[in-house]
Amino acid sequence: MNPLEIPEIVIKRLPLYLRTLKLMADQGQTVTSSQELGDKLRISSTQIRKDLSYFGEFGKQGTGYDIGYLRDQLRKILQVNRRWDVVLLGAGDLGHAILRYSGFEDRGLSITAVFDKDEQKIGRPIAKLKVLDIATLHEVIQEHRIQIAIIAVPASEAQEVADALVNAGIRAILSYAPITLSLPAHVRIHYIDPVIGLQSMTYHLNPGPL
Amino acid sequence: MNPLEIPEIVIKRLPLYLRTLKLMADQGQTVTSSQELGDKLRISSTQIRKDLSYFGEFGKQGTGYDIGYLRDQLRKILQVNRRWDVVLLGAGDLGHAILRYSGFEDRGLSITAVFDKDEQKIGRPIAKLKVLDIATLHEVIQEHRIQIAIIAVPASEAQEVADALVNAGIRAILSYAPITLSLPAHVRIHYIDPVIGLQSMTYHLNPGPL
Repeated sequence: MNPLEIPEIVIKRLPLYLRTLKLMADQGQTVTSSQELGDKLRISSTQIRKDLSYFGEFGKQGTGYDIGYLRDQLRKILQVNRRWDVVLLGAGDLGHAILRYSGFEDRGLSITAVFDKDEQKIGRPIAKLKVLDIATLHEVIQEHRIQIAIIAVPASEAQEVADALVNAGIRAILSYAPITLSLPAHVRIHYIDPVIGLQSMTYHLNPGPL
Repeated sequence: MNPLEIPEIVIKRLPLYLRTLKLMADQGQTVTSSQELGDKLRISSTQIRKDLSYFGEFGKQGTGYDIGYLRDQLRKILQVNRRWDVVLLGAGDLGHAILRYSGFEDRGLSITAVFDKDEQKIGRPIAKLKVLDIATLHEVIQEHRIQIAIIAVPASEAQEVADALVNAGIRAILSYAPITLSLPAHVRIHYIDPVIGLQSMTYHLNPGPL
């Protein structure tokens, strides 16, 4: 099947499958089923089988999935069977939390530079990196041909930072700033906003006491 | 239409519409269209009209949507035309970043307590709150009948914290811990994991230099 025909919603579920398979493997498990994956992720087993069928045959009727094999295949499909360099914009509380998050390295991603415009922060060490002057952003991205950036600056600065990233050649942005960015069509964007997640749950809650 | 028949994927898009309408209103705009909303969110205008049609008629052919009216309606639908108290678990870098994030209060949510188990942190002020001892979690949640929690503790402690939250009566959890939690069916869960967002974009990137 032509990759262009695979619905984006399917692509977005694959990292969830991969994360769950990793946790199972870390606990010593070697085989799973669409039913077990579905129970853990609250997705129907039919949906999981349908999603995976876009990419081939990964399990046999009655024996389930070999976790190691399925992980390898999903890593290849998502292109995380390699290491992508990522730049981080913003060295505040959120930047610190992102840099100290240990989940990147063994999942195909590595934050290799962090930038800020605050002179108090430039040159300071965070985790294994030193904060770089945002004035050097273009040069660093071009030199290392970096395609991925994380925006962790205040909302008021996010569009300006995004423009600079696009200008330097970035193709994919993960943004924590709670605004919708204007970006050219060739640049992918994924937003992380806790309120979006919370508001999709308040819909279901019992109003209870005000 | 029975609310139970509305697909979850539709519910999950409504907060995005609401956020975009808020930004438009903040900039003084009073009318929009499904086309403009779609362009900003990279969703088709047909999808947006279909999503909104589950809940009624919000615009007139040719005149578009009144932003104030549509916001009010979406706030009612998502039940954020009120204030929900939220408890935060974890007072580390991430907890600090969440507490300093200014996007909650005017979107129907308010973090009213933060807990940690670290005696060095208990009693310290962060933003307008003082860090509480996690030993008091059950009591605080029950007393204020709080239904929503944010988990910002290390992955190794997240399941234990989740169990305590469920036991105290929490019905909706936003978790930043990069593990899939085991929870009873009546508890809603939304995960925030930067790697999940990044991996759904690496799929589309040009492999380029390794």
